[in-house]
Amino acid sequence: MRFQQQKSKALNDYRASVRVGDVDESLIPLLDEINRMESYYTTSSCGGRIALLEELGGKGLNRFIRKWHDKASVEDVMKAMGECSTELWFKCEPPILHVVAKSLEDANHFLHEAREAGFKRSGLQSSGEDRNVLEVLSTESINTPLVVDGKIVVAEEYVRILVEDGNRKLESGWVKIERLRERLSRGPG
Amino acid sequence: MRFQQQKSKALNDYRASVRVGDVDESLIPLLDEINRMESYYTTSSCGGRIALLEELGGKGLNRFIRKWHDKASVEDVMKAMGECSTELWFKCEPPILHVVAKSLEDANHFLHEAREAGFKRSGLQSSGEDRNVLEVLSTESINTPLVVDGKIVVAEEYVRILVEDGNRKLESGWVKIERLRERLSRGPG
Repeated sequence: MRFQQQKSKALNDYRASVRVGDVDESLIPLLDEINRMESYYTTSSCGGRIALLEELGGKGLNRFIRKWHDKASVEDVMKAMGECSTELWFKCEPPILHVVAKSLEDANHFLHEAREAGFKRSGLQSSGEDRNVLEVLSTESINTPLVVDGKIVVAEEYVRILVEDGNRKLESGWVKIERLRERLSRGPG
Repeated sequence: MRFQQQKSKALNDYRASVRVGDVDESLIPLLDEINRMESYYTTSSCGGRIALLEELGGKGLNRFIRKWHDKASVEDVMKAMGECSTELWFKCEPPILHVVAKSLEDANHFLHEAREAGFKRSGLQSSGEDRNVLEVLSTESINTPLVVDGKIVVAEEYVRILVEDGNRKLESGWVKIERLRERLSRGPG
């Protein structure tokens, strides 16, 4: 019963987030599929992104100054580099899902499907009665400095390589998202 | 009983690996501490590394051509770049541990300690009676291309930035390893 109550609340939050455009479009068919299943619901998630992280020095003083959930452009990255006076990192991050499963058996079933769909770095974050929290994650990433001590350390041609590779990795993440949706839709639900 | 048998076997493997120098020295005090505890044993692990990954095109055709578990040098990276005719990536990876816990409660306790020590990306990979497999992982990484289509795409000065930052990240991983060992040694074991 507790699972069902928590799921109802999570579904309300999810629907509100979709309405205001806070959920990545690439993820909506998969999240709908998961939330339709009896033993699961989704919490936070991201369909993969390219981001610029400014490190202000000192612990925890980092902030994302740009995020792209579709495709990044070389021009936008160059512009942000020119405006950074501290340290700036280029990051491409794979899709990430958090899913709550009713039983441990449900959790293990989901992890199996996720790994088969290509989300190799998936695991249970915590486990307890009626609440088993899964993190579903893939491995493709880019993570490298663009500006160090206020000085640009890469040429535009290198930025182009990063952006093009990052955009390809985003597409590859979307393929895995669709693959997982298909696998789940075939199951008993 | 099954746990104890599996642990005995894993400990034999571990001791043999230590003898032949296959276990990162930075990890040995922590692994010894974990294996001394009643409810846990370690399987595969890495104390963090800098590596050069050659991508030969096509799926799965990747191979590590260099790995450093202590510190990398700019000269060695430049040399490897000059010899690569395909695609080469610079990677710095955080420490990773795999630990088997006897019960789910033991697993959750270990995950708590690991996260408190700074291993934020830690989770249960699988869970079953007498065998709960944990992956303990941190987040610091570097992952960026050095050679694309046989062409070097970064200057030596940028390689120096990557190597110095990577070496600092390795050190930061060793601090977390020691912090986790200390936390575990304080507990009931």
